[in-house]
Amino acid sequence: MELRIEGIMPPIATPFSDGRVAHDRLRENLERWNKTGLAGYVVFGSNGEAVHMDQEEKLAMVDTAKQNLPQGKLLIAGTGCQSTEATVRLTNLAAERGADAALIFTPHYYKAKMDNAALKKHYLTIADRAHIPILIYSVPQFTGISVAPELVASLAEHPNIIGIKDSSGNIAQVGEMIAAAPPPPSFHVLAGSAGHLLPALALGASGGILALANIAPKECCKIFDDFRRGRHAEARELQLKLLAANKAVTAGFGVAGLKAALDMVGYYGGDPRPPLLPLGEDQRNELRKILKKANLI
Amino acid sequence: MELRIEGIMPPIATPFSDGRVAHDRLRENLERWNKTGLAGYVVFGSNGEAVHMDQEEKLAMVDTAKQNLPQGKLLIAGTGCQSTEATVRLTNLAAERGADAALIFTPHYYKAKMDNAALKKHYLTIADRAHIPILIYSVPQFTGISVAPELVASLAEHPNIIGIKDSSGNIAQVGEMIAAAPPPPSFHVLAGSAGHLLPALALGASGGILALANIAPKECCKIFDDFRRGRHAEARELQLKLLAANKAVTAGFGVAGLKAALDMVGYYGGDPRPPLLPLGEDQRNELRKILKKANLI
Amino acid sequence: MELRIEGIMPPIATPFSDGRVAHDRLRENLERWNKTGLAGYVVFGSNGEAVHMDQEEKLAMVDTAKQNLPQGKLLIAGTGCQSTEATVRLTNLAAERGADAALIFTPHYYKAKMDNAALKKHYLTIADRAHIPILIYSVPQFTGISVAPELVASLAEHPNIIGIKDSSGNIAQVGEMIAAAPPPPSFHVLAGSAGHLLPALALGASGGILALANIAPKECCKIFDDFRRGRHAEARELQLKLLAANKAVTAGFGVAGLKAALDMVGYYGGDPRPPLLPLGEDQRNELRKILKKANLI
Amino acid sequence: MELRIEGIMPPIATPFSDGRVAHDRLRENLERWNKTGLAGYVVFGSNGEAVHMDQEEKLAMVDTAKQNLPQGKLLIAGTGCQSTEATVRLTNLAAERGADAALIFTPHYYKAKMDNAALKKHYLTIADRAHIPILIYSVPQFTGISVAPELVASLAEHPNIIGIKDSSGNIAQVGEMIAAAPPPPSFHVLAGSAGHLLPALALGASGGILALANIAPKECCKIFDDFRRGRHAEARELQLKLLAANKAVTAGFGVAGLKAALDMVGYYGGDPRPPLLPLGEDQRNELRKILKKANLI
Repeated sequence: MELRIEGIMPPIATPFSDGRVAHDRLRENLERWNKTGLAGYVVFGSNGEAVHMDQEEKLAMVDTAKQNLPQGKLLIAGTGCQSTEATVRLTNLAAERGADAALIFTPHYYKAKMDNAALKKHYLTIADRAHIPILIYSVPQFTGISVAPELVASLAEHPNIIGIKDSSGNIAQVGEMIAAAPPPPSFHVLAGSAGHLLPALALGASGGILALANIAPKECCKIFDDFRRGRHAEARELQLKLLAANKAVTAGFGVAGLKAALDMVGYYGGDPRPPLLPLGEDQRNELRKILKKANLI
Repeated sequence: MELRIEGIMPPIATPFSDGRVAHDRLRENLERWNKTGLAGYVVFGSNGEAVHMDQEEKLAMVDTAKQNLPQGKLLIAGTGCQSTEATVRLTNLAAERGADAALIFTPHYYKAKMDNAALKKHYLTIADRAHIPILIYSVPQFTGISVAPELVASLAEHPNIIGIKDSSGNIAQVGEMIAAAPPPPSFHVLAGSAGHLLPALALGASGGILALANIAPKECCKIFDDFRRGRHAEARELQLKLLAANKAVTAGFGVAGLKAALDMVGYYGGDPRPPLLPLGEDQRNELRKILKKANLI
Repeated sequence: MELRIEGIMPPIATPFSDGRVAHDRLRENLERWNKTGLAGYVVFGSNGEAVHMDQEEKLAMVDTAKQNLPQGKLLIAGTGCQSTEATVRLTNLAAERGADAALIFTPHYYKAKMDNAALKKHYLTIADRAHIPILIYSVPQFTGISVAPELVASLAEHPNIIGIKDSSGNIAQVGEMIAAAPPPPSFHVLAGSAGHLLPALALGASGGILALANIAPKECCKIFDDFRRGRHAEARELQLKLLAANKAVTAGFGVAGLKAALDMVGYYGGDPRPPLLPLGEDQRNELRKILKKANLI
Repeated sequence: MELRIEGIMPPIATPFSDGRVAHDRLRENLERWNKTGLAGYVVFGSNGEAVHMDQEEKLAMVDTAKQNLPQGKLLIAGTGCQSTEATVRLTNLAAERGADAALIFTPHYYKAKMDNAALKKHYLTIADRAHIPILIYSVPQFTGISVAPELVASLAEHPNIIGIKDSSGNIAQVGEMIAAAPPPPSFHVLAGSAGHLLPALALGASGGILALANIAPKECCKIFDDFRRGRHAEARELQLKLLAANKAVTAGFGVAGLKAALDMVGYYGGDPRPPLLPLGEDQRNELRKILKKANLI
């Protein structure tokens, strides 16, 4: 079972309306995204507010995404839970419903105990029992845990562990992973933020799973294509131009900002679930200015 | 509805056996704890591996604890979830099953966005809708978020927010909370670790919710009683004597260490759920030595 | 050579005027402080802007302080430098000029390499060669390094290492140090902030080196005396009352705030050296309100 | 006065022997480095143990470096001190002795107060008064402070602030600086570690000031040249190959590791000054293996 992961995928925002997942809105968003060069989608990742959804909601989202997935595009589900057992269970339920792969964050509540030995056992157990390939997800902003390159190298030997999304922004570490793990399609190192997309590609990354790709799918894909075709100056120019917008919809305004930006660029965003607060009017104005400057509206 | 929270409560370890919650073991542990001066119990707190349990398991644990709860002892449930809505729901389910109050951690996955405004709205919404009183739970070791004294002062005005468990170990902050919030029974500031029990009492804390009270219930209660009766030298001596053991079953060896220690002192501990790893033999030997030195075995 | 360190000492702010150390102002401040129950003074500690002074200035300050030191009060110099050799040299120069002891912060520029082995060798080398007793200074707010209780226990065996000022605010750690080190006058554990003065005393601390004692010497001494005489309620009340003022002149407004507060309570404060900025008008007003509420003005 | 900073420079290790700066060893090292394509040298930067040297030693080092500096190579001095005044003074003394520019770290002892306003005033004051151009030095590993891109953009407007060395490894931030500041020779963004050299170049960095260039000057220059000439595959391959060696002589084994590596590759390294400990035998063996694998020995 070989899966090749190349190009750009958004970890899509989950559209809520009246407190429920708005499947019609999700469909509309997917239809628009489908017309771009995106390689696929990640459902209920960090930007999809996985932690604010229950299992039913997650699986229903796999269904809707699968029904609207053109051939050749990938569907990846963010099935990481705090316990190993719950992660295996959710991964296999998502697999049954049609997910092609699972993106699994590091468990992190007991972060001081999540050393390499604990994480290794966690991921190997899941890899052994999962019915679809898995990707490691290193996102210290949210978890406080940065997956070490030597652990990645060791996990990459498992045939069912096929990549990592590294959102740490530690580009030396991204390089160390690429240097240490086998090349695609055995193992894919993916940029976890548009902030380091081009730098990661320059080191050999296979692509990126990027919040920014929600609102700027074409632009993110263009950086990837430009780079692959040796148009380095164009890639660089676009990368620099998008940095402020990327920051705004990630560290800057967070998920609420990403959703507001979706609304601004013509997708459905809506509000995040509490306790995340929607953007205030001043923040929206600032965001709008940033998106304009990046030519996204 | 006035609830007075005074004295020592353990956030009890959840006994697992063959992958299931071992209710018989839980009952046996409770029977022994019931013979001590403990003021009550917290079920599925951080040390109870709440993040490794599903809703069914949590509610069944409330049932068992309630059935074995002597009059006059409190039952508090750790009902914090990442989303406000899920927290309200679990809190009220636990209330239906007999929990007297709920201990609610700060949501923390999107920690950079959990500013005072977001946390305030979260706790006020829950307090408005919860059928039992709630306690704030500040535990930066696990969440990366330390609840600020000024937020505590503001939340303490809500009649249904009756206290805080502060596990930060920042004793100045504990003092600031005591200085800023109304006195018990309106609001109770509780030490969140035996490491700062006596210091917190010296500042006016109402008691403590202490991992160490799982394995040293009598000793923890004795510090509380000695302090209340003005036996400061005795309180101090015991406090200093227990520090190493407390560290071992918290920051040192974590939940796995607490469970191993339970086994060593005659309760049922068992293993934590993966990805937490059980202690290795060397660690057990070290732990045993520490417990012996503290006269706990 | 036995030195007993008991009670309260301020790490005094260094008065600057026209870019120079204002020795006349220093004398005036000392004359006022001398009338209180302070046990002595720390010159050029963190609050004395040691890092903004050159060696000449530091030694001249020892001279002035020594000339104005009543019998029975101690003079401690903050002689820590990044290199071991420079620390030995400055310590012995301060000793020649009359310092009774030296308070030596952890070197910290290469903080990742300052493990227990490196710190142990650093302090033992200094202790062997210093002509006056030394105190360890653990101040992670500024250095990023918290001295571990087990290192303290080991260093405390050296006859010329007679104590530690712990500014970490980690009260469990303060307790662990007291439990592990020999009692005074062999070794003195001193609170490093008024924020944890009473809690530290409750655990057996010998006193405190407190920024707040610059502006509230009598009040800090009263907490110490009340505690020693068993007036726990009074000690507690005053401790809680001073917390906000203490925070304002430490973490809140920093050295600039401490100096502004000195001016407000009738001492000479003046401005800190750049890059520290003096307080703005709004900050001064806020500070004044806090000091009034604490009855300090 | 226009200075163009392009290419690779090592922040050279300061050779000590018998507790003194070994100027003969320094000369020998410089002679060898002079034969490579290095664009110049940084004396007494972080890797030069500036914090372990006094002013005399620093200025003498400028002398020796200047005497051995071939035309066309730059001499940059690491003149940052904690106080603004001391930094101006040292910068101008270094200028008198022949330094072409100064690399000035963020003051950091009072890190919580080093907000953008304080840092801005600090750097502008220095830039106004310095007789040579200055470069900002952002090195959060040592200082706890990461200079924000918006501050860089603002400071870059000053004609005497001509660049930044960013050692944070936050590559998105490096990009934001390049996007926000004017292009060379007005302002130069320089990689502060070989770990992100190629990624920074891909974004438009002017070069790098790299610890690794002490021991691998040719290799670091080759990455720069390959990139500039469009040999991306070669640049990438060499970048990936050097990552482990770079980590070993920076975060891994620190300054002591860099010096041991210098000895291994045929330069003079010697021991660092205490409290830095020299490498143990096991560490040396591990380091040797890493250098061999990178073809550096």
